[in-house]
Amino acid sequence: MGDWQEITGGVTAARGYRAAGITAGLKPSGLPDLALILSDVDAIAAGVFTTSHVKAACVDYCRQHLQAKHSARAILCNAGQANAATGSQGVKDTLESADLLAKELGISPEAILLASTGVIGQRIKMDILRSGIPKVVAALSETGSDAAAGAIITTDLVKKSIALETTIGERPVRIGGIAKGSGMIHPNMATMLAFVTCDAAVSSSLWQQMLTRAADRSFNSITVDGDTSTNDSLIALANGQSRTPAITEMGPEAEKLEAMLTAVCQHLAKAIARDGEGATCLVEVQVSGANDEAAARQIAKTIAGSSLVKSAIFGRDPNWGRIAGAAGRAGVPFEQDNLQIKLGDFLLFENGQPLPFDKAAASAYLKQIAAESSLPKDFVATNNSNDLSVDRSMIQPQRVDNPVIISVSVGNGHGTGKAWGCDLSYDYVKINAEYTT
Amino acid sequence: MGDWQEITGGVTAARGYRAAGITAGLKPSGLPDLALILSDVDAIAAGVFTTSHVKAACVDYCRQHLQAKHSARAILCNAGQANAATGSQGVKDTLESADLLAKELGISPEAILLASTGVIGQRIKMDILRSGIPKVVAALSETGSDAAAGAIITTDLVKKSIALETTIGERPVRIGGIAKGSGMIHPNMATMLAFVTCDAAVSSSLWQQMLTRAADRSFNSITVDGDTSTNDSLIALANGQSRTPAITEMGPEAEKLEAMLTAVCQHLAKAIARDGEGATCLVEVQVSGANDEAAARQIAKTIAGSSLVKSAIFGRDPNWGRIAGAAGRAGVPFEQDNLQIKLGDFLLFENGQPLPFDKAAASAYLKQIAAESSLPKDFVATNNSNDLSVDRSMIQPQRVDNPVIISVSVGNGHGTGKAWGCDLSYDYVKINAEYTT
Repeated sequence: MGDWQEITGGVTAARGYRAAGITAGLKPSGLPDLALILSDVDAIAAGVFTTSHVKAACVDYCRQHLQAKHSARAILCNAGQANAATGSQGVKDTLESADLLAKELGISPEAILLASTGVIGQRIKMDILRSGIPKVVAALSETGSDAAAGAIITTDLVKKSIALETTIGERPVRIGGIAKGSGMIHPNMATMLAFVTCDAAVSSSLWQQMLTRAADRSFNSITVDGDTSTNDSLIALANGQSRTPAITEMGPEAEKLEAMLTAVCQHLAKAIARDGEGATCLVEVQVSGANDEAAARQIAKTIAGSSLVKSAIFGRDPNWGRIAGAAGRAGVPFEQDNLQIKLGDFLLFENGQPLPFDKAAASAYLKQIAAESSLPKDFVATNNSNDLSVDRSMIQPQRVDNPVIISVSVGNGHGTGKAWGCDLSYDYVKINAEYTT
Repeated sequence: MGDWQEITGGVTAARGYRAAGITAGLKPSGLPDLALILSDVDAIAAGVFTTSHVKAACVDYCRQHLQAKHSARAILCNAGQANAATGSQGVKDTLESADLLAKELGISPEAILLASTGVIGQRIKMDILRSGIPKVVAALSETGSDAAAGAIITTDLVKKSIALETTIGERPVRIGGIAKGSGMIHPNMATMLAFVTCDAAVSSSLWQQMLTRAADRSFNSITVDGDTSTNDSLIALANGQSRTPAITEMGPEAEKLEAMLTAVCQHLAKAIARDGEGATCLVEVQVSGANDEAAARQIAKTIAGSSLVKSAIFGRDPNWGRIAGAAGRAGVPFEQDNLQIKLGDFLLFENGQPLPFDKAAASAYLKQIAAESSLPKDFVATNNSNDLSVDRSMIQPQRVDNPVIISVSVGNGHGTGKAWGCDLSYDYVKINAEYTT
């Protein structure tokens, strides 16, 4: 793979970061619900936020903050209440949260970024937050990433965390990240969140550019059910504590850093897709031969998001017709006579025409991937904070390193792109329909 | 409603049309599979076809035909094989089909339009078609619409047919239509088809404009699973046999004709959405306050197509958060403080904030609509041509006149738009996953 190695530590793997996750009491379940990430020094900050026109107060807050000021010290995240569609009082709650944390940390409120996840239309339980803030600050530690990862999840079955290390100027540089998201299991409970920490020194405009591109190649290329949340946020800090030379323009070192940032984001994005509600396996769609990367990714996302393709994978059905149909409706022109479709190593369709193939073997390939997609039970995350009465025996640790591979070529162009999704099972409908308010 | 009345007769309600539907043997099930609609005289012809870049040979054939020549006498439709992704041989089969029918009818091949539905990647069984064409011509009758409606369906649970009559220049003018479509129940079996006949005299460019607008307000505003097929076709003929004055430009009479054409298309479109795989009810989303009709319709379609909204309706859950979330991600800017959401008569959300409402009563509203959405058993279409081993006891006649109503207002603009969909049930996944090749 890339020119880096996986290390432990999540968001506290990079130098100069501490993190914490505690049970403040915001969730009815009594599971952890308040997370804090703190950089020892001012860090360059970049963000990518939901494109929805219905959005949480914290999203507006962060977007305004990052437009005015490209740095931050801390990210505070609560779970339980999304503070979206809560009107002017929601805005006041956001500002008060920042003020309270700033006082507790002895820093400026302008150095604080905020994220929320939970029930849309519910304000943050401010009494509980007020008493929780001193506790989460007191819990900060250089090994606190796992606790933070557990406190930001809601209906996720597993925690999502990664850290990678490379060398720049012969010194180690690290990027770590944690994330949450699994579709929208709870009525009105939504959201994909990801927080990334880096100890390289990088200019703010370059860091934002890198993050935007990395988001397009990761979080913007996954689909569970096609629904964008009101609270989706990706925030990345770079605090320079690796003491490597500052990176201010694109070049070999910037490319190395961006590649590792992209890898961190892709790992977290794939973990979210794999944890899609009711999913039994991760699906990776690889598209080549398009005119450019955006066109290729558009086709890949359309295939990964097709309910018919997703249902077929759940049925272990090597159904090339649905893949061809989804590719055709992606809004990207191509000559159907150039279309090629592969499922794993099975070539199903070439030059615009179906090929004979071993259907039983192709179906067996899908069955095998699904069977291997859960890890042994003793890998199960124990810190699951699901608020629902989900059958805990359902909870399986998940592999993201062995997806079902769908490869599609649409022509002779140089554009390639990937997207990730999951299969569509009975449990998706069960999860999303059976809980009624 | 509009300035018209419903009459019987489907596509043979308008003057100067005959139709037929027979069992040629193209479907393995032995159910009817070959339909023909014939105008006694040359009719103005307009069409709207799939936007997919993977498409059937008959779609290319019709599109080329209608670009060169805006008239036709006959529409031949086979079910069983889609003749999509069949390469150059598929094109030859299409041309041969037109030639064979032209000879049998004693007319020019250029007067023939073609449609296919069935398995993608399968050529039409030409031996069977060759022997079927004389039979379907022999079966033509002025009361043949019902047989034709039964011969174009594949996995549909019910036939779809409508006819309306109005007066223009004190003479009766009629428009009738038949359609098929219910999502994609069978692996690779797809497609929405609709054929409309009219006995008004109208210029070809105006007829095409009317049909394009009517399609946007009907077939392009429904969603079952978001998947566009390779074979989707809407073809409308206008043969002038009402002997009313020719309509050559927009004006009161043209508007009257277009309104009735739109009503025919909307009835058929709603019947397709209601027949969505596994659906228990029809859902109508009404959006107002947008800048224009296209923006309103875009929001309506996004809500109607949201898996989360669809699952909530199946769960009889008045989940305004999912409706707000879908509205927000539709790609149409609006101020969330202007958002208003109603479910039936229940006002759930106003001025960007949730309202208290009677959740039990709102849930009861959804339960009641679903309970009323099936008609008594003795209304069941007996001519179902489902190729699969679907439990026949599942088959319920369906109401399209009593949908679940979701009303959304996004501001003070004059743009309004509607979309139709259905709920997402376990049976959707069951139908689409359990049949494996």
